[in-house]
Amino acid sequence: MAVRTGDQGQAAMNGLTEKVLTLDTMNQCVRRVEYAVRGPIVVRALELEQELRQGMKKPFTEVIRANIGDAQAMGQKPITFMRQVLALCVDPELLSSPHFPEDAKRRAKRILQACGGHSLGAYTISSGIPMIREDVARYIERRDGGIPSDPNNIFLSTGASDAIVTVLKLLVAGEGRTRTGVLIPIPQYPLYSATVAELDAVQVNYYLDEERAWALDVGELRRALHQARDRCRPRALCVINPGNPTGQVQTRECIEAVIRFAFEERLFLLADEVYQDNVYAEGSQFHSFKKVLTEMGPPYATQQELASFHSTSKGYMGECGFRGGYVEVVNLDPEVQKQMLKLMSVRLCPPVSGQALLDVVVSPPEPSDPSSAQFQAEKQAVLAELAAKAKLTEQVFNEAPGIRCNPVQGAMYSFPRMELPPRAVQRAQELGVAPDMFFCMRLLEETGICVVPGSGFGQREGTYHFRMTILPPMEKLRPLLEKLSQFHAKFTREYS
Amino acid sequence: MAVRTGDQGQAAMNGLTEKVLTLDTMNQCVRRVEYAVRGPIVVRALELEQELRQGMKKPFTEVIRANIGDAQAMGQKPITFMRQVLALCVDPELLSSPHFPEDAKRRAKRILQACGGHSLGAYTISSGIPMIREDVARYIERRDGGIPSDPNNIFLSTGASDAIVTVLKLLVAGEGRTRTGVLIPIPQYPLYSATVAELDAVQVNYYLDEERAWALDVGELRRALHQARDRCRPRALCVINPGNPTGQVQTRECIEAVIRFAFEERLFLLADEVYQDNVYAEGSQFHSFKKVLTEMGPPYATQQELASFHSTSKGYMGECGFRGGYVEVVNLDPEVQKQMLKLMSVRLCPPVSGQALLDVVVSPPEPSDPSSAQFQAEKQAVLAELAAKAKLTEQVFNEAPGIRCNPVQGAMYSFPRMELPPRAVQRAQELGVAPDMFFCMRLLEETGICVVPGSGFGQREGTYHFRMTILPPMEKLRPLLEKLSQFHAKFTREYS
Repeated sequence: MAVRTGDQGQAAMNGLTEKVLTLDTMNQCVRRVEYAVRGPIVVRALELEQELRQGMKKPFTEVIRANIGDAQAMGQKPITFMRQVLALCVDPELLSSPHFPEDAKRRAKRILQACGGHSLGAYTISSGIPMIREDVARYIERRDGGIPSDPNNIFLSTGASDAIVTVLKLLVAGEGRTRTGVLIPIPQYPLYSATVAELDAVQVNYYLDEERAWALDVGELRRALHQARDRCRPRALCVINPGNPTGQVQTRECIEAVIRFAFEERLFLLADEVYQDNVYAEGSQFHSFKKVLTEMGPPYATQQELASFHSTSKGYMGECGFRGGYVEVVNLDPEVQKQMLKLMSVRLCPPVSGQALLDVVVSPPEPSDPSSAQFQAEKQAVLAELAAKAKLTEQVFNEAPGIRCNPVQGAMYSFPRMELPPRAVQRAQELGVAPDMFFCMRLLEETGICVVPGSGFGQREGTYHFRMTILPPMEKLRPLLEKLSQFHAKFTREYS
Repeated sequence: MAVRTGDQGQAAMNGLTEKVLTLDTMNQCVRRVEYAVRGPIVVRALELEQELRQGMKKPFTEVIRANIGDAQAMGQKPITFMRQVLALCVDPELLSSPHFPEDAKRRAKRILQACGGHSLGAYTISSGIPMIREDVARYIERRDGGIPSDPNNIFLSTGASDAIVTVLKLLVAGEGRTRTGVLIPIPQYPLYSATVAELDAVQVNYYLDEERAWALDVGELRRALHQARDRCRPRALCVINPGNPTGQVQTRECIEAVIRFAFEERLFLLADEVYQDNVYAEGSQFHSFKKVLTEMGPPYATQQELASFHSTSKGYMGECGFRGGYVEVVNLDPEVQKQMLKLMSVRLCPPVSGQALLDVVVSPPEPSDPSSAQFQAEKQAVLAELAAKAKLTEQVFNEAPGIRCNPVQGAMYSFPRMELPPRAVQRAQELGVAPDMFFCMRLLEETGICVVPGSGFGQREGTYHFRMTILPPMEKLRPLLEKLSQFHAKFTREYS
């Protein structure tokens, strides 16, 4: 032993040491992780902003970060009541200030009463403040037309991402051909592929049907599942509704079919429902998996395992920075539920300011409360503007030759398909980048518009897309959409 | 295929379905995770609180949660200036309120300027707000007597735990006998053992020397390392200074020896320095690993890989609920550093209110600022009281027969050793629980005092300890310590 390490020690003293941690010796699962929403295109966008600040001349005056669903970064104002309650919780001396309405003070006091030492600075229990979990349960009951929700099945989290990773972590087992397979939609939100890679599980792709407005088809689920059984043990099915990046809102019939499929095939369901308040299209309506599952009765209602995720980051509030969220588990094995709590306890607790914010999200002012009118007005204004922007996006893109955009029924993104000329595809291949990455990078360099290439979300071979948020303010959005369309036309001419 | 799944489907329809996710089918690494600080003893403490609220008669009137370093839950007041800055950031309308001092307003404006959309509700880049990382770097430079710190080497995190897990995650590789071994102190803070179990790495214990006030001895490190080489590939060495649960503060000589050892044995160093402001004993002083490493010169300064962790949860502010923290990496391979940023980006960003709070922690008011005097007075009052409580704890425990407590040089805990009578040990074994868990559970049931058994942190075979925070308010602490000592005496008599 002494010899073995002595040699290394000697080599080290001579300055020959290689690092302990290198690309080759690091966790190779982590190395395989990809996360396009903050990938190279965003790194370059940050550099360009820096260069603009330093006075470098560019063909644009600002970088528009349409790559991420970050409403307040795009100028959306926080909901006044939420911030009032939170400021009162942060600095309880303000409880005596006439600046704040009575209902905000009442709410802040109620939250502080539920905190250790009456302070946001204390840890909470790992599943989150019990009172807030009760409020979440009541919110779910109202949302789902009275179907009961048990606060003991609700775990608060650091944004929805944290809860999604926790549930996937529980599900990962096996080795080689018995490794856990996780069915994820393509296109998907890349948290799923990233987490599956990090956990060394097997990603099983099922394709959403672009020709039918990105509908989820159970025949395709079945195909994906059966093909995957040779290489892994599929145990989990992830569904994103409303869809990210695709913006589709699933019909009740579709959800029923997915639940039947999951039940028959013994798949644990993960329902990413963080855009449940973001439904714009006429005729579209959000149906929670929990509600549909319950209304289908036994055996689904009593046996199908489900985890449903929600967040404070999206909806009409867009409070991404506070990292609030929750998961409701349904029909989870009680012993596994204890394991889940144990796992969460290692990280102590979700940020308490995010928990407090979530409380206001799930229990807004009552109609008789002084802040109710303003709260509702602010909420409706945001949602109405998002609906208008969803429509405008679809319309402008569909007027552009070579771009085709499905209706943005919900969520916060368009995911248009674009034609790319064969010479551009070839040029990209020569450069060793995906053709849509090549397009998006050129778009960024020449217009300052930052969108994410479809390859970061997955797409059918030979098709090209990009994801763009609908969040820029209305007065900027139309010129932005037109500029992007014009750039696409120019790019197409250049490579024709 | 259809048959295989059809059978299961049929079984399911007949109500015979087993759950997809059970103790047997779940992630077995997660199942092996243990986290005593929030384990069964705390579950029982919560139940007892509930029972007290329901009016059940107990031999005590309140549960004292001395199990976790949660200062504000124990009644410690937040630092006024920190909460003022944060409230202004949360609700910028308050910037026009005369309630707030000018320097708090200036600080809040500066933070908001650095946020997307000038709002805490926007995401930040995944490593945290650049301006705050610059402030952290300047803090480290001041702390370390001018040794440079590069903001690009600083990553903000969701408490220190998040950053520790991230760094360990990068380090995990190999299979069977080539699996990554992680050296951790015994006794340790159980985040380390829990994370090592979850990541399926190999825990390599090195024992701190209780007879020498929990000193870290390099001979023992060497023994642990060499014995471990048969079963794994040791690649990381975790050090907690000031110690948790042990309260020791390492000498500069000790740190130098550890660095030499890590370098010679090619170990990546993780320095958990979250208690860097919590040093009480005369003659003790905090030395950061970064500073010592740098002052040792090449090859250590230029080659030894190090990650140093800090947090907003401890120190004099005790803002656990905001989940603020950071890691500074030193000599990390630049390619690995990119991988680390990528991994962090999947979770988007640390809570922005925690980032803002961290900014105030690392750059308190300047002496010429209006809030400076109050800030310093509040800070010194907290630290002075903690020092008095550390001393009192040691003193009272050492007066009790059968209890022996090392000096609490730093951090927030005492970790006294206690004698347990053989009949109590035997009784515990009959019940299938660790003897110190048996003691702590009886203590809780009969006195309402909640402390964590030493077995949750690790201890030498046949020795028994508990961890108790020094955080209860002074007027409660002395009776608490006496009550605990008396219970130990009674327990000892009962089983003699």
